[in-house]
Amino acid sequence: MNRHEPSPPPLIRPWRTIARRDLLAAPPHRISVWVETVELPDGRVIDDYYQAALADHAVIHACTADGSLVCLRQYRHGARRVGLTLPAGQIDAGEEPLAAAQRELLEETGYRSSAWTALGAYPISGTQGVATAHLFRAERAERVAAPRSGDLEDSLVETLAPAAIDDAIARGEFLILTDVAAIGLARLPPR
Amino acid sequence: MNRHEPSPPPLIRPWRTIARRDLLAAPPHRISVWVETVELPDGRVIDDYYQAALADHAVIHACTADGSLVCLRQYRHGARRVGLTLPAGQIDAGEEPLAAAQRELLEETGYRSSAWTALGAYPISGTQGVATAHLFRAERAERVAAPRSGDLEDSLVETLAPAAIDDAIARGEFLILTDVAAIGLARLPPR
Repeated sequence: MNRHEPSPPPLIRPWRTIARRDLLAAPPHRISVWVETVELPDGRVIDDYYQAALADHAVIHACTADGSLVCLRQYRHGARRVGLTLPAGQIDAGEEPLAAAQRELLEETGYRSSAWTALGAYPISGTQGVATAHLFRAERAERVAAPRSGDLEDSLVETLAPAAIDDAIARGEFLILTDVAAIGLARLPPR
Repeated sequence: MNRHEPSPPPLIRPWRTIARRDLLAAPPHRISVWVETVELPDGRVIDDYYQAALADHAVIHACTADGSLVCLRQYRHGARRVGLTLPAGQIDAGEEPLAAAQRELLEETGYRSSAWTALGAYPISGTQGVATAHLFRAERAERVAAPRSGDLEDSLVETLAPAAIDDAIARGEFLILTDVAAIGLARLPPR
């Protein structure tokens, strides 16, 4: 008796949301904040787990036939500076992420592609979720129109030769986490 | 007269924030939402540009001497599922991002490294900023203690052999955008 039995391997189980209290919602701006009461697997109850939601967005890693990356030089207020971004934009209500990606690539850069691959969909925050970034690769992109995004940001389309991409990252030219994530994911071997 | 002169090349200029109205602040939870009045370079004024801030965080791409990646299997409420994450955590007030990364690696995994490189700091949202993710690489990490994170999440430390990482990404096992971004950035050639 009192001998120690080996413990069973711990099982990682999800939490359960048992209540939700809304704190802020601005639907035209697609932003909301709320507090959840969550129950952990061990039975503990946490009554102040904050969550926030912004619009989901599509991010496009588009390359031309020679492998150049289609980028924008623009000011992004989230970064408070001017630099490089990948084409990206909010997914409209009811819109498929791929359709949003195709629309944003054309609107923001004037490029179009008929070779699209999903690179994954990831929440931008592990704690609050916040938004899901849907990342896509577009190959053999061709310029078919002038850009006309209608966005608040002025922007210039720039194509980066493959050999220039790592340098641009190392110099800190890419502004946003989604962009470097998409560049990394686009380099995984095709499956 | 009336001849079209070539336009000067457009210059990408930053916006200017001319007013700010706070909507929500929960300092213990490090979350705030506010509306800015911003002036665009062309003089337009936008009086409802929503911004949100959560805690900045450090994310650690730590490899052992044989190149295995130190991961956690855990439930993350932001993703609403169980999967793989990299060690990561909030940067405490007044704490240096590197110090936070070193602390979180030890607390969450029991691993320590003396070979650290910064992989960059990126806002997680181009529009709202939200939080800056500070990404780090740690090499030749060694297990020196038992994990004791004190986090709400149960977690298991798992090391992934180099050949298994791309498969895990392709299967969607990694939960959060910061993690795949750090994996991509850690593969850039050292400079």
